[in-house]
Order: sequence, then C-alpha cells, then structure tokens
Amino acid sequence: MASVDVGVALLGYGTVGASVSRMLAESGDEIERATGHRLRVIRALVRDTAKERSFPAADGVLTTDFAAIRDDPNINVVAEVMGGLEPAGGYVRELLRAGKPVVSANKQLVAREGAELFATASAAGVQLRFEASVCAAIPVVKVLRESLIATNVHRILGIVNGTTNFILSRMERGDSYADALAEAQELGYAEADPSDDVNGADAAAKMAILATVAFGSRVAIDEVETRGITEIEPAHVAAAADLGMVVRLVGIATLANEAVDVRVQPAFVARSHPLAAVDGAFNAVMLQGDAIREITLEGPGAGGTETASAVVADLVSVVGTAGTGFLQNDACWRELDRLDPNAWRSPFYVHLDVADRPGVLAHAASRLAAHEVSVAQLVQRLGDGQAALDLVLHEAPLGQVAAALAEISAFPEVLGRPFVAPVVSDRSL
Amino acid sequence: MASVDVGVALLGYGTVGASVSRMLAESGDEIERATGHRLRVIRALVRDTAKERSFPAADGVLTTDFAAIRDDPNINVVAEVMGGLEPAGGYVRELLRAGKPVVSANKQLVAREGAELFATASAAGVQLRFEASVCAAIPVVKVLRESLIATNVHRILGIVNGTTNFILSRMERGDSYADALAEAQELGYAEADPSDDVNGADAAAKMAILATVAFGSRVAIDEVETRGITEIEPAHVAAAADLGMVVRLVGIATLANEAVDVRVQPAFVARSHPLAAVDGAFNAVMLQGDAIREITLEGPGAGGTETASAVVADLVSVVGTAGTGFLQNDACWRELDRLDPNAWRSPFYVHLDVADRPGVLAHAASRLAAHEVSVAQLVQRLGDGQAALDLVLHEAPLGQVAAALAEISAFPEVLGRPFVAPVVSDRSL
Repeated sequence: MASVDVGVALLGYGTVGASVSRMLAESGDEIERATGHRLRVIRALVRDTAKERSFPAADGVLTTDFAAIRDDPNINVVAEVMGGLEPAGGYVRELLRAGKPVVSANKQLVAREGAELFATASAAGVQLRFEASVCAAIPVVKVLRESLIATNVHRILGIVNGTTNFILSRMERGDSYADALAEAQELGYAEADPSDDVNGADAAAKMAILATVAFGSRVAIDEVETRGITEIEPAHVAAAADLGMVVRLVGIATLANEAVDVRVQPAFVARSHPLAAVDGAFNAVMLQGDAIREITLEGPGAGGTETASAVVADLVSVVGTAGTGFLQNDACWRELDRLDPNAWRSPFYVHLDVADRPGVLAHAASRLAAHEVSVAQLVQRLGDGQAALDLVLHEAPLGQVAAALAEISAFPEVLGRPFVAPVVSDRSL
Repeated sequence: MASVDVGVALLGYGTVGASVSRMLAESGDEIERATGHRLRVIRALVRDTAKERSFPAADGVLTTDFAAIRDDPNINVVAEVMGGLEPAGGYVRELLRAGKPVVSANKQLVAREGAELFATASAAGVQLRFEASVCAAIPVVKVLRESLIATNVHRILGIVNGTTNFILSRMERGDSYADALAEAQELGYAEADPSDDVNGADAAAKMAILATVAFGSRVAIDEVETRGITEIEPAHVAAAADLGMVVRLVGIATLANEAVDVRVQPAFVARSHPLAAVDGAFNAVMLQGDAIREITLEGPGAGGTETASAVVADLVSVVGTAGTGFLQNDACWRELDRLDPNAWRSPFYVHLDVADRPGVLAHAASRLAAHEVSVAQLVQRLGDGQAALDLVLHEAPLGQVAAALAEISAFPEVLGRPFVAPVVSDRSL
C-alpha cells in the first residue's frame, strides 16, 4: 500500500507533546510499515510559540489559534496533551463534533467528563482514545476494549498510584511515613504538594476511568469511596508483615448483581499475590473475567516518554481502524446502579486495642459470630496492661463487618477505634 | 452504523473451536456494539460431522470439505483452531492466498512456519493474527504489535510454560522433581508425556514467536538455545532460596548490536523480581523497551476458554481494522544476525563442588579475574571433606564465564562439573 500522509495536531507541546513529536519522527518507518501511513505533526497549539522546547517543532507548526487546528481539513487526528479541565475539555468536544478523532492523555478530563465525551464521539462517528490517561504506557484500556471484549470483566484490582506504592514499600523497610514521603519527593516520585496522591484522589480518578470502560456504565469520580494512606502507621505495616502481607493503596472495582462498586483504600495484600510484587513507583492492574480468570498488566504508571508512548499507540490505533466503525460506540452504553456499600464483600483485616482483661476476646468473637462473620486468623499480642488483637476475617459483606465492629467498639474494654482494611489474597478467605 | 453480518469459519471444532463458537454467540451484542458487526460462525471444518460437541454447531455448519470454506465468498475471516503442522499449514496458506484473513491458535505452526505465513499474508494483503498461539489469553502479541510500535523493545523475559513453573514452585516447598511432576499430571497441568514441557521445547516455540514479532526478524525454533528443567535438583532450589532467589524456567530474547539471541533455561530469579511472583501454572512476559522501561503481562498461559478468548479478540481485531491496511506488513521485515552466544551478557549463578583443601577458592577467584569476571556474592558451605561454593557473578559475557569455568573445572580439587544458570534480578549485578 502506498504511503499516505496523516496529519496530526497536538494540543499542548510540553514534555509529553514534545515526546510524542519526537517519537512520531523517530519511529516514522515503523509506524508506516504497520499502518501504511506516515504520521506527521503539522500543528501544535501552544500559549507561547517563542518558548524553548526539548524537541523543537518544525517551522510553522506551533500556533496559538485553536481554530487553525479544528478547521484544517489536513488534520486527521488530534492528540490532547495539554492537561486540565478547561480549555482542554472544550477543545476536545469541538474537535469531536468537527469529526476529528481525538487521543487524550488527560486523566482529570476523562475521569470527570468521560461519559459526555464518549457520547459526543459516538454521536459524531469518530474515535476518542485515552490510553495515556490511565497508568501511562500500561496498555490497560486497549486490552479492556479490544482483547477482553467477550470476557465479562467483573473485577479490577489496581495499584494505580506510584507515589503511595513507593511510600508504603519504603515503610516496610522501617521508614516512617514522613521520611518515606520526603524521599519520594526527593526522587521526583511525589510532587511538592502530594495531597492528590496520598489522599487517594489520583487513584480514584484512574479507577473511575477503568471501571467506566470495563463495566460500560459511568462511574463518576465522586462515587469512588476513597481513603488515602495518611493514617497508615509503621504499626500497620508491621502487623501486615506478621501476617505475611504488605499494606498497599489498592483500587477495587466490582460488578456484582448488575451493580457497581468502586473504592480506593489501604488494603492488606498477601505477599504471594501478584500485586504485592509491584515495586516502588510501578503500577499494576489485575483484570478478572469469566473466560480469562485474571490478567495482570504491570509497568511504569507515569513519566513523559511512557505517557507519550501510549499517545503514539493510540494515534496508530486510530489510523489502523479508520473508517471501520470500530470503537465508535458509546463506551457508556448502560446505566448500572451503585452497589449498596454494605453489600460489598471482601475478607478484612481488623486491628483492635483492648484492655488486657478476661472476656474481651470472647465478646469480640461473639459479636462477629452474631453477624455471621467468621475469623480466619487471630493474633493477640500483650503490652503493658493492654493487648493488641489482629484479626483476619473471612469474606463477608462490609455491612455485617461494620455492624459487628460497632458493637465491639462499644464495649468499654475496647480502646480507641478499630482499624479496618480489606484483604487481597489468592486464597479464598 | 447498521449491523452487518461477518461470516466466520473455523478450522477445527474441538475444545477451543466450540468455545469460540459459544463466545461469538453469547457475546454477540458486545462485539456488535464495538465493531458494528455481528460475527456468525457459518462453517466449521471437522473430520467427523457426527461427533458430539460441547457446544453444538448450528445445522449445516459442520463440513468435511475445506474447499467449501476457501471458496465461500460469504466467509470473511477464518480461525484455525485445529492444531498440528499439516494439514493446518496448507489450509492457512491457501486461505491467505485466497484473500481471507486468518486467526491462528497454532503455536507449532507459527513457530515453525511463521515467517513464510507472514510473507504470504502480506503478499495477499490480508491479516494473519496469532495471539492465541502464545500464552493463551495474555494479549502479548497485540501489545507488541500495536501498543509498543514506537518503543524499540530490545529484551523479552518470559515464564511461558505453566507446567515447569508449577513443578519448580512445588520444589520450593520441598517436593522432589518426580513428586512435583506427578502432582502436575494429576491436576492436569502436565500431559501424560510431559517431554515438550520439561525439556523446554514448548517454551522455545513461544519465545521464537515472541522474538520474531518483537524484533521483526525470523527466529527459527531451532535457533533457540534450549535447556529444560530435568537436571534441576532440590539442592539447586535450596541454594537459590539461600540467595533470596527462586529457580524458574525463563525465556530470554535479546536484541543487541543489531543481533538476536533467544534462549530458554533454568534461571535464578530474585524474589523481588516480578517474574518470581508468577504463581503455579500462570505465565508472564516482561517486555523491556526504550520509551516504556518495562511492561509485564501475566495470566493463564493455557486453557480452552482462555485460548478461545484470544481467538475471539483476534477475530474482533480483524473486523475492526478491515480495509485499513493495518498490520498487513510482513512482520519479518529484516534479517538480523544471530548474536555470538559467547557475547551474550548476563549475571550468572555458579555452583561448584570442591575438595575442602586450601587454595581452591583462591584458584577459582584468580581464574574468574583473569577473564574479567567479578564476583558479586559468594557462599561456601562445608560438608564431610568437601565444600560447596555458590557464586553469583556480576554481568559478564557468557564466553568469558565459560572460559573461566573450564579452567576452574580442570583443577583437580574441583569435583564434577559446575552448574551454571543466568540470574534475573532487578539490581544490576
């Protein structure tokens, strides 16, 4: 097939944009071999055309005029690599309506306005791809939408925030939370303001996107039950180690009884579980489905070239499917209810501090039994006049566990509030 | 887009074929939503149309006449799920020449005749997809060909044989090789004749396919340096454990200096390495490339529905890219030399049994130093009159390590032959 030029425009020409531009130039032969087309960046929208760039654009490519991109019939596909909700969102909508396929690396935009953008793309009969918006180069969106189409993915487990993974890994070696965070900042894994990482908001945005794509129903970021890692203490990490587990910030998306539950929280992960092996700032996503049992994808979840690599893959995929109608459907094709959080089932870890007096254990055990929650593992450690109880509970509905713990906490011998975290394990608990 | 029927034919209607047929029927809505097409199995080639099937074909679908498939203009894509080199290979060639895209689940065929088949498909201007031929549902071929197109993958590490992974995992718990193999056979993870698994031939076929796709140059299965696990003893597994490692059958494909090396052998894998966490009969493939650092895909590497899931994904991808020219290039587009095996670099583990006499260690160290091989770690254990030396060597060319070991073995105090295995580790050794 004779080579045909495909005009590419970029919205934004920062680290990612310059990297995309460089990759399209340097891998032009590979892309042409696979697609039959030469992808050329012919316009890039910037605020300041005079600024220095790590990979300079060709003469005349940089522009400050969005309409010059939207209205140029020679531009066949646009990569949005500018970030932020506006003006990026407005631009993407205008481009889709103008019939231009869009590739977006914008996590906030897709997490907040994905459902509307998917509908806009579908109505316009063009593709919107967004691999780079979740976990950089890990091709989880492509695998969900193209490889697992007939497999009914009903559960996603994800370590989707590298900063918290790095901090919790470091705490295993005995570092305090504060020291681990400081090291993450020093190494560039955490921002000067790490709030969105450590409070779980970043992971919640990614899990919202993944759940939306996997289940075909909109999951708004505010519907993700989110708890960060700021309350995690060395004692929790040590307790996990005693049980053969590690503490990780885990996103869990569940489709059960035609209802959806998405949550992000510190979880106790068995060392033998694939997610426990995810190192430092890496990300991993485990997809569980009917035909495939489970497939896990792991890799760097951030980084300029990693993100650019996903943008380039999406551009190639848009070109490789042009005119076929493929993936022009609305990714949100149904409206599923939200699962009653009390009905969400998991094994759990519970820590209780109690006065070292007879009967406390019997009381706790009877309250759990009354709510049909059974104990898989129990470790009691004595301190001065008080005891620490570490419990691993068999899978049970969250509501029953919470009800039992409320009754247990009301017992005067129980000191402070119980600490509860889901357990992620290979063995069915 | 109005739904259009796409006629699908199957070559073979055994476990995988019946599963593909079932999935296309049960996931028809999902597939139509994504592609705009309804995929229908309208012909399936079998030897005996009267045989009972787990998912019976509709009336008139089963046929014993290959020409009825090749010459039917209503058949748009064919899935080869019959296995074996012939007649499957002849059928696939004829179909491609007749302009029909083919999806193959046939590892032996793609590993042995892939290069010719890719060229045939390219010349005919149709796609040949073969995701299911490697690691069942793990979408590694799609990720290599579509997601990592601009990323120059230069190294692949794979645990691509579930049987040996299961056996070696069991040996860590103290089982003998024979007991572990017997258990694998009992659980259905190993065939009655497990030769191709334990001698590495199965893994070699998969690594040959992966290397061919990743590097764009034909790697014949006979060019894969292959060593199985039959010589692995509990002592090796114990020595690995002492070093914080596990023994695994690892495939390593390397592109260095425009030359290719592919090998399958028992390796010592650091417990902290993602491949060490791959459990039992699961498979994992790690892809290392310029822009992505590394991406690891893990999942079930075998199974009827898992394989069928990959076939369905390929069928969907063929339909989703029809008429675009995408992936109609010859996947073997260059001819790379084979790397001189002596130039292949790795850290290594070495075990030596030596007489417990002064000077042996000094001798071994001096021979290694003479060949510029340096020692990262050394453990000496004394037995009755003899000693066992476990060495971890820093990364060095295989030729230099082999030369040093030949000189060391010639020393009369060295008993028997050294045991050598590459080390797979996160840390650069």
